[in-house]
Amino acid sequence: MPPTLIAPAGTALWRRVAVLIPGALLYFLPLPGLQAEQSHLLAVFVATIISLVAQPVPMGVSVLVATAALALTRTVPAGRVLSGFSNPTTWMIWSAFLFARAVIATGFGPRIAYLLIHSFGRSAISLAYCLSAATVTLAAFIPSDTGRGGGIVYPITRSLAKAFGSEPGPTAGRFGAFLMLAGFHANYIASAVFLTSMAANPLIADFAFKIAHVELTWLRWALASSAPALLSFAAAPWVIQRICPPEVRDTTAARTLAGDELRALGPVGRKEARLVGILLAVMAGWVTSPWHGVQNAYVALGGLSAILLCGVMSWEDLLGERRAWDAFLWFGPVLMMADQLLESGVVGVLSKAAFGHLTGWPWGAALAALVVGYLYIHYAFASMTAHATALYPGFLTAALASGVPPFLAALPLAYFSNLNAGISHYGTGSAPVFFGPGYVGQGTWWKVGFLMSLVNLAAWLGVGPLWWKLLGLW
Amino acid sequence: MPPTLIAPAGTALWRRVAVLIPGALLYFLPLPGLQAEQSHLLAVFVATIISLVAQPVPMGVSVLVATAALALTRTVPAGRVLSGFSNPTTWMIWSAFLFARAVIATGFGPRIAYLLIHSFGRSAISLAYCLSAATVTLAAFIPSDTGRGGGIVYPITRSLAKAFGSEPGPTAGRFGAFLMLAGFHANYIASAVFLTSMAANPLIADFAFKIAHVELTWLRWALASSAPALLSFAAAPWVIQRICPPEVRDTTAARTLAGDELRALGPVGRKEARLVGILLAVMAGWVTSPWHGVQNAYVALGGLSAILLCGVMSWEDLLGERRAWDAFLWFGPVLMMADQLLESGVVGVLSKAAFGHLTGWPWGAALAALVVGYLYIHYAFASMTAHATALYPGFLTAALASGVPPFLAALPLAYFSNLNAGISHYGTGSAPVFFGPGYVGQGTWWKVGFLMSLVNLAAWLGVGPLWWKLLGLW
Repeated sequence: MPPTLIAPAGTALWRRVAVLIPGALLYFLPLPGLQAEQSHLLAVFVATIISLVAQPVPMGVSVLVATAALALTRTVPAGRVLSGFSNPTTWMIWSAFLFARAVIATGFGPRIAYLLIHSFGRSAISLAYCLSAATVTLAAFIPSDTGRGGGIVYPITRSLAKAFGSEPGPTAGRFGAFLMLAGFHANYIASAVFLTSMAANPLIADFAFKIAHVELTWLRWALASSAPALLSFAAAPWVIQRICPPEVRDTTAARTLAGDELRALGPVGRKEARLVGILLAVMAGWVTSPWHGVQNAYVALGGLSAILLCGVMSWEDLLGERRAWDAFLWFGPVLMMADQLLESGVVGVLSKAAFGHLTGWPWGAALAALVVGYLYIHYAFASMTAHATALYPGFLTAALASGVPPFLAALPLAYFSNLNAGISHYGTGSAPVFFGPGYVGQGTWWKVGFLMSLVNLAAWLGVGPLWWKLLGLW
Repeated sequence: MPPTLIAPAGTALWRRVAVLIPGALLYFLPLPGLQAEQSHLLAVFVATIISLVAQPVPMGVSVLVATAALALTRTVPAGRVLSGFSNPTTWMIWSAFLFARAVIATGFGPRIAYLLIHSFGRSAISLAYCLSAATVTLAAFIPSDTGRGGGIVYPITRSLAKAFGSEPGPTAGRFGAFLMLAGFHANYIASAVFLTSMAANPLIADFAFKIAHVELTWLRWALASSAPALLSFAAAPWVIQRICPPEVRDTTAARTLAGDELRALGPVGRKEARLVGILLAVMAGWVTSPWHGVQNAYVALGGLSAILLCGVMSWEDLLGERRAWDAFLWFGPVLMMADQLLESGVVGVLSKAAFGHLTGWPWGAALAALVVGYLYIHYAFASMTAHATALYPGFLTAALASGVPPFLAALPLAYFSNLNAGISHYGTGSAPVFFGPGYVGQGTWWKVGFLMSLVNLAAWLGVGPLWWKLLGLW
């Protein structure tokens, strides 16, 4: 098995060079206010983030090259270069990818979705709610927007559309367009719900702790998201229905399909039952972590040990779970770089330079401006993680500098790190999956995305702060 | 793709329980001289090592379960549990496994072997030397005895035997038995030659640095091994010939086969040429590390970045290299546990208890007794790594306590961590590969193994110290 080329060499060349130019400029022409080591670190970080966005090579390659560069140029001390790989946050994410594999492989994921559809799918709107309920249930253990959307929600959405004879093209409007949009918007909203429903959420919690000194525990994250998430989930199908009204009224075919799929899945198997037991125990461990004090990552590693010992997943399956390794390999160095930027004071300097004009604004206005900017800047990003890694620390620092109370600064930026994915058809890994088949045109997709972004702003920046006040967070 | 069970549950149960009993006893009935935390750590470590030997579950599962146990029982502080994963030694090993993949996938590995056979294979003995030369050339970049033996040397050995009509059974003695033994002994001797030719060698160097305060750099390791390795390589075919004389005299068929294989490989490809360039640069980086001071692991990560950027290996190939992940996952925690045992003083206490009777011996006699014991105790081990991890620190501590000069204590134990693999047909991963086809009976295999162990003692414990004296190491 000869290894394959990573990309057609010719076409990617300009992208490789383009990535290096800003980095090289920063490296050799340092910014005023930054010392040589700081600007070297910033140069490598900026080149890495540009590379994560432009993707001249896979994300992991960019990050690995950056790591080697930081070590070989001694920009980061030798003892710190690999520190991201022993950070529990990195292992939390890795474990969650393996939980996701088990949830999908045992059939537990599809079963949840089909059960909901079979029991409650009595209209187009209620089918959309079933999709939302399924994705949010699974979101606690599937930290990949793409894995959850592409691996479970999309295939089910597509089968449902097919069951109604709705295919891309003339019959798209019958039901498919509505379902695709419902599935997509449910999926990224679910990413905001739990600390463990998107890969970068634990990183964000890490940033929040280091910068704003607030602890976004698993329970606190979920409690704070609950009310605004309910509003977003409730509104989404109605907004989508206004732009893409489904023609179908009788949804018996959907319930029949779900019934057939459930019969095909058969009764709950031994592995599936064990998995559910283990996952419930893990979730209990996460929820109670403020009391027993064991870090989330170690609870997850305990659960993973149980999954392996019970035979729910084999060691070879674990070793072969490429997405877990991919996340592991880019996450560790990114965490290390972000930590170094924070500790060396670079974030403070840059945030002051970029947001200095906010000085003197009332903090409410400053927060609104920052969150709205943070949301719509995502038109320039193809990854929630790249966005959060590059901008969360700076925006959070600016919000704090404007006098926003710590939780009120950390939470909306954390949630909009997920909600920003809804505005385009490339803003997260699952977007091209739902957009790709062609049920929905780009104009419609963006229009719904923009309307939903207003709904999300109302729910998470309008109602959210009231809810968090009620919870006593500020 | 439903995950598979890790082992047939029934049969493995007793093995799982057997592994837990000594650990549980140690955990709950602490040893005199050890404090509770020390004996808890020792209990988990002992259970892990027993599990690595008995293999009721794959190595990685044992290690992951142990890691979770240490974290959940707080035997190891939360901040230290994952520290092995940011240790450069762990990443050195991981990188080396990826180099190995590239060496095999590009065809560079087989090409070296066939070139040597084609040019120099003029007799049975010279064919054996060609196998030795090929395996030692590749050993610098293939840190897995099994990968090198099973992936390159064994297939070539088998084809050679076939080319002479020698199959297991009546025709085994014609050539096959001799070749299998020659390939096997060349392979594990090559593991001793470089710091990077066996997975646990960097770990051993780590131990040597921490316990004996001697630095086994890449260059020093290779220089010190060179003279005794030459003796072992030179003697092996002659020893094997005495027990399994090959009947074949005319080796034209071997050279013809090698020529055919070289033609089938075609001219050196672009990827292969790039790989060779990168590997030479990496080796230069390792050799010169005493001067530029960049750690071996970072040189390796730089080389790996080049391999990815040049398209010699794709990111997906890297993610899919299960053996690299396997080594990574068990190596990190084992390193962490060994470090904790050393730092908490457990190794000192145990070594004193086990080897107290050596007090008063002349240090030469003590060293000889320790090395001989260290070698033959390997009849009880199926893995070089398990052996070295469990026993190297204790034996080295004992040797130092007996007054052996640091290098003279560290080096023979380091080399015999590799050479011990030759005494049985299960002592290392490659042994069953060469033994399995049945060219050689168990009695013959053990007889040759024992004779070779005497040769190795003469070369590495007899001549070795003189050579190291000449090098100024003591």
